[in-house]
Amino acid sequence: VDRAQRIDLNSDVGESFGRWTLGDDAGVLASVSSANVACGFHAGDPVTIQRTIELAKAQGVAVGAHPSYPDLAGFGRRSMRISGAEIEAAVMYQIAAVAGFARALGVRLAHVKPHGALYNDAAANRPLADAIASAVRRSGVEKLVGLSASSLVDAAKHAGLRAVREAFCDRAYEPDGTLRDRSLPGAVITDPEAAAEQAVSIALRGRAVAYGGDEIGVNADTLCIHGDTPDAARIAAAVRSALQAAGVAVASPP
Amino acid sequence: VDRAQRIDLNSDVGESFGRWTLGDDAGVLASVSSANVACGFHAGDPVTIQRTIELAKAQGVAVGAHPSYPDLAGFGRRSMRISGAEIEAAVMYQIAAVAGFARALGVRLAHVKPHGALYNDAAANRPLADAIASAVRRSGVEKLVGLSASSLVDAAKHAGLRAVREAFCDRAYEPDGTLRDRSLPGAVITDPEAAAEQAVSIALRGRAVAYGGDEIGVNADTLCIHGDTPDAARIAAAVRSALQAAGVAVASPP
Amino acid sequence: VDRAQRIDLNSDVGESFGRWTLGDDAGVLASVSSANVACGFHAGDPVTIQRTIELAKAQGVAVGAHPSYPDLAGFGRRSMRISGAEIEAAVMYQIAAVAGFARALGVRLAHVKPHGALYNDAAANRPLADAIASAVRRSGVEKLVGLSASSLVDAAKHAGLRAVREAFCDRAYEPDGTLRDRSLPGAVITDPEAAAEQAVSIALRGRAVAYGGDEIGVNADTLCIHGDTPDAARIAAAVRSALQAAGVAVASPP
Amino acid sequence: VDRAQRIDLNSDVGESFGRWTLGDDAGVLASVSSANVACGFHAGDPVTIQRTIELAKAQGVAVGAHPSYPDLAGFGRRSMRISGAEIEAAVMYQIAAVAGFARALGVRLAHVKPHGALYNDAAANRPLADAIASAVRRSGVEKLVGLSASSLVDAAKHAGLRAVREAFCDRAYEPDGTLRDRSLPGAVITDPEAAAEQAVSIALRGRAVAYGGDEIGVNADTLCIHGDTPDAARIAAAVRSALQAAGVAVASPP
Repeated sequence: VDRAQRIDLNSDVGESFGRWTLGDDAGVLASVSSANVACGFHAGDPVTIQRTIELAKAQGVAVGAHPSYPDLAGFGRRSMRISGAEIEAAVMYQIAAVAGFARALGVRLAHVKPHGALYNDAAANRPLADAIASAVRRSGVEKLVGLSASSLVDAAKHAGLRAVREAFCDRAYEPDGTLRDRSLPGAVITDPEAAAEQAVSIALRGRAVAYGGDEIGVNADTLCIHGDTPDAARIAAAVRSALQAAGVAVASPP
Repeated sequence: VDRAQRIDLNSDVGESFGRWTLGDDAGVLASVSSANVACGFHAGDPVTIQRTIELAKAQGVAVGAHPSYPDLAGFGRRSMRISGAEIEAAVMYQIAAVAGFARALGVRLAHVKPHGALYNDAAANRPLADAIASAVRRSGVEKLVGLSASSLVDAAKHAGLRAVREAFCDRAYEPDGTLRDRSLPGAVITDPEAAAEQAVSIALRGRAVAYGGDEIGVNADTLCIHGDTPDAARIAAAVRSALQAAGVAVASPP
Repeated sequence: VDRAQRIDLNSDVGESFGRWTLGDDAGVLASVSSANVACGFHAGDPVTIQRTIELAKAQGVAVGAHPSYPDLAGFGRRSMRISGAEIEAAVMYQIAAVAGFARALGVRLAHVKPHGALYNDAAANRPLADAIASAVRRSGVEKLVGLSASSLVDAAKHAGLRAVREAFCDRAYEPDGTLRDRSLPGAVITDPEAAAEQAVSIALRGRAVAYGGDEIGVNADTLCIHGDTPDAARIAAAVRSALQAAGVAVASPP
Repeated sequence: VDRAQRIDLNSDVGESFGRWTLGDDAGVLASVSSANVACGFHAGDPVTIQRTIELAKAQGVAVGAHPSYPDLAGFGRRSMRISGAEIEAAVMYQIAAVAGFARALGVRLAHVKPHGALYNDAAANRPLADAIASAVRRSGVEKLVGLSASSLVDAAKHAGLRAVREAFCDRAYEPDGTLRDRSLPGAVITDPEAAAEQAVSIALRGRAVAYGGDEIGVNADTLCIHGDTPDAARIAAAVRSALQAAGVAVASPP
């Protein structure tokens, strides 16, 4: 049975900070359909935010905000125990900051995708997910991207948002459907062809081959391309080509 | 000759940060007509920003953004040599962050007033003032508050903004019209009655008695009440009463 | 049976930051025997650190470092999941910074006491406690203060440090010996006399009356006075007087 | 006439921060004799500081502290108007933090060299230079590196420190002896051979060919290799080789 005639490809961009640069944003933006722009709390100073949205706009890529725990030194990858009221306000602040540049550049903020530890924590912690969903709703943004089949997707629906279910083409799944831990062998898929194959399988059939060989169900509206690997642009291009060759349109969520 | 039938009273608020509190915001907001909300760069975390706008809304006080150099440790009182492109983006970021909370709370962002060293530098440095004015214009805010007869007021007009000329009722002027340096005796007016008298004189006659006794011209659309002094609420109330007793309405700029 | 002829009183000081002030350091330092100086990660800018050590030296109070998770906005009260290598380096950095001022002022850094969430986490998380103990040992400081009967005390001993066991005179204990949660009624003891009574009981008899009325054992080398309450100086003075009246000398650990 | 039988080569290292990396420290440390380690205010988190000192120690390179204005977002390249008391304390804090890691690794902190805008400002601003020199002296470090023939060198001597006069082999000089502004053509020397030639000329004869062709006097105890250019390691190696071939020993200042 055909699943999707279209799927979104998204990538985290704008993750430079001041003197430090990270990732090949221009290269990745040439292939993806949605860009998650760092908001200044884990990466992304104001000049970088502006330049990144300009780049995305020029490529016709949908612009979203990529809010994080306040943790520049840890790149937002360290869990923090923050109250719901604090994280809701912190997420609103970050969304608003990026939305302001988008508006000034004539672009509508299409979505929000939490970053790093905030994304991971919200996948399993429903009160945290609810605080994020409330921030997105109060900010007037319609779509919230979360790990497929996670608390964040549930919270998004419950808040009346459009939940965008995310899957990964460059990460291996375990037989139980969770992502294979990064510290284990085989967790990261670095071969562009293998990533493209997994992308097509998820997009067309809603299925992926888990670590060990079993096939599992993976429902996704968007596929993530990690932008900070050296090969990100090449992987993005390979995934996009393979999807299009398989008859799947690459486009931001409707 | 009558000058103003109305004048604005403004104060800097929301200048707490995390565990640290500063100023009697509720007390001051009871008397002023415009609130300049710290944006997170010199003070003001997201929770504080939200709470401060709620307070201002409840009191019917106009809400503005109060952007700063990025300098928490120095409370934005240290000049920084930042390029025009950087300061323009930094000011846009801060305006947008506060505007997001205002929008979510059903309040329109009425104005922008730069803080501390940024305010002082922009009074004399026209390219810096132009960068700030550009940020305000691109952010879709109409009014920019600057020191009366300064480069910032000129830049605001040149950018097509409504320039709001600011004067001070709790600071002494020098005979040449500049503010008396804070390090000199008599620079700060702490007596509520004296502050009220200067406010009425500026509002009704466009004149103030400078340090030494000479009278000078001071044109103002808004008068500043410094919010971080212990007596701020009492001074604000005294100034408002005196203005109203003299037939001057206290209201945010039209 | 007599327990202690002497006990230490300690308090967290130097928790101002830039424009923001917190606590009555001079008042508290008049009564305690050990000062835990904030190192810049949750509070305490360089000028404040220097001034605080000068104050402590003038009062003859032992100076220690009070390192924290890197979290100014949360005042170090939010748990962060940080790797052992990172927290060890972060603690060494903070100890060294305070030790430098101490050395320049002719004072030896006597001890280290972790702050807030780092202190609480290290009481129950042995690998975290080991990382902190390693940082203290490598920094050349002899004493590490931790919650009595906690992982941090165990880690200190294991690292060859002098473990200083801490108890609280202004917090209620549960019958199982843990501290009563701050969110529950009766958790904080605000009456100076009650705090003094608990201090004497712990110092002289190694026992305290837990919430509910049962007596429990509490072994302590030092008692904490929370410095950021309005009454801190008064509580510190009452506790010191009561201890001395009971024949207990107040002095930093030998 | 022979000038120097020896000269120091120094480079700024440890300028990564968290997720972001910068410069080829290992490559540069293979050729220089002194390393200026970023202290956390413009770059350099605690883990990076520790790792950088380990690298320098392994290569037998002298370790110094490289303090900056507090400005991560601007990489310490933006002038800030900070009081003497504040900058003295900020520099002491940074020196102490790096010195702590050095001591734990069995290395003596050999020198201090201010970074970026702080270095440039201190070259012309004597009170600022005096505040830095006081911080170095009070920190117990003997050597202070400053631009040759600048206020910082004068302040170092006046404070009883050993002044280390710095010159540049990868920057062009103007006929008046100042460094050619980076915004002008020909300001930066990127050809390793040209840099090596200037290094030998300064080391052996105390002279350099200024922009335009005139020869000027340049007295130096140390030559800077900018570590954040792509070719830094290659330039460092070429300069070292040329110096040794000319009979000049490359060694940290005695």
